[in-house]
Amino acid sequence: MKHDAAYRRLKTVEGHIRGIERMLEEDAYCIDVLRQIQAVQAALHKISALVLDEHLHTCVISAIRSEDVQERERVLNEILDIFEAFQKL
Amino acid sequence: MKHDAAYRRLKTVEGHIRGIERMLEEDAYCIDVLRQIQAVQAALHKISALVLDEHLHTCVISAIRSEDVQERERVLNEILDIFEAFQKL
Amino acid sequence: MKHDAAYRRLKTVEGHIRGIERMLEEDAYCIDVLRQIQAVQAALHKISALVLDEHLHTCVISAIRSEDVQERERVLNEILDIFEAFQKL
Amino acid sequence: MKHDAAYRRLKTVEGHIRGIERMLEEDAYCIDVLRQIQAVQAALHKISALVLDEHLHTCVISAIRSEDVQERERVLNEILDIFEAFQKL
Repeated sequence: MKHDAAYRRLKTVEGHIRGIERMLEEDAYCIDVLRQIQAVQAALHKISALVLDEHLHTCVISAIRSEDVQERERVLNEILDIFEAFQKL
Repeated sequence: MKHDAAYRRLKTVEGHIRGIERMLEEDAYCIDVLRQIQAVQAALHKISALVLDEHLHTCVISAIRSEDVQERERVLNEILDIFEAFQKL
Repeated sequence: MKHDAAYRRLKTVEGHIRGIERMLEEDAYCIDVLRQIQAVQAALHKISALVLDEHLHTCVISAIRSEDVQERERVLNEILDIFEAFQKL
Repeated sequence: MKHDAAYRRLKTVEGHIRGIERMLEEDAYCIDVLRQIQAVQAALHKISALVLDEHLHTCVISAIRSEDVQERERVLNEILDIFEAFQKL
């Protein structure tokens, strides 16, 4: 599996989310719940960065070094879309 | 449970995360993985808004309507902290 | 002027933006431009927090301590809207 | 100037910021001020996307197509840094 580090971190996030579910079941203090959700979101940002890193070092390098100008354009536009979408989060 | 809607949405997020784990196991295209992570983060934003809504309508109203100025200040500062922390995500 | 600190910081942001305009005029390195834009955005987050702080300590306290349930609801919903809108930035 | 579109948009942002300064001088309603700040931040996101677009289509393509592996690595790491920094905003 190429995304090994991302996978392990995502497993941790899954456990974290189950922890937040228990907090909600036990009517935990809202602010504590919000802080745990923020911690999950920070972890997901980190996972996104790992996946993007992998992507830049594989697909993006291949596409840009190929002579296929259309494929190159497609790959660069995908990165811009992802960048804009993350800004809107 | 007071956070009923938040709880149900969080259960959905948990399933969504397991789906992303499977994508990583199957070496899915990086950009598709990033888009799924963005969808999870949008869902978490919505859950945070639900929890904050509940918080404003219960603890914040009680604290502000009480005569305990210190408690009122504590509750307002918590909201500002949460607001600043979410901006940094 | 009630927003004194916010006003002074915004004046600084205005100067910062003129600095970025000059960078663009001089064809500065893109990454340096992006970092300056990020610095401006961090400054704007801080200004938003100052304005929200002022708002919570004046309008929100008055509305919640009044007996006008509709006004109270309006003020809380405005905060939720602002919170959701900032998450989408 | 290579960043023509970004420059024009930044000039608009500068005018928008002066408008918000006037709102603060006139003690405008806090929530209206916050909404205008959000509009400025959305405009800055768009400008960042334009600058990144330019960067990907010039420096990044050159660096990746060159045989200088170190320069290639430097350019990819810069993009990752920018991506992580924007997530933290």
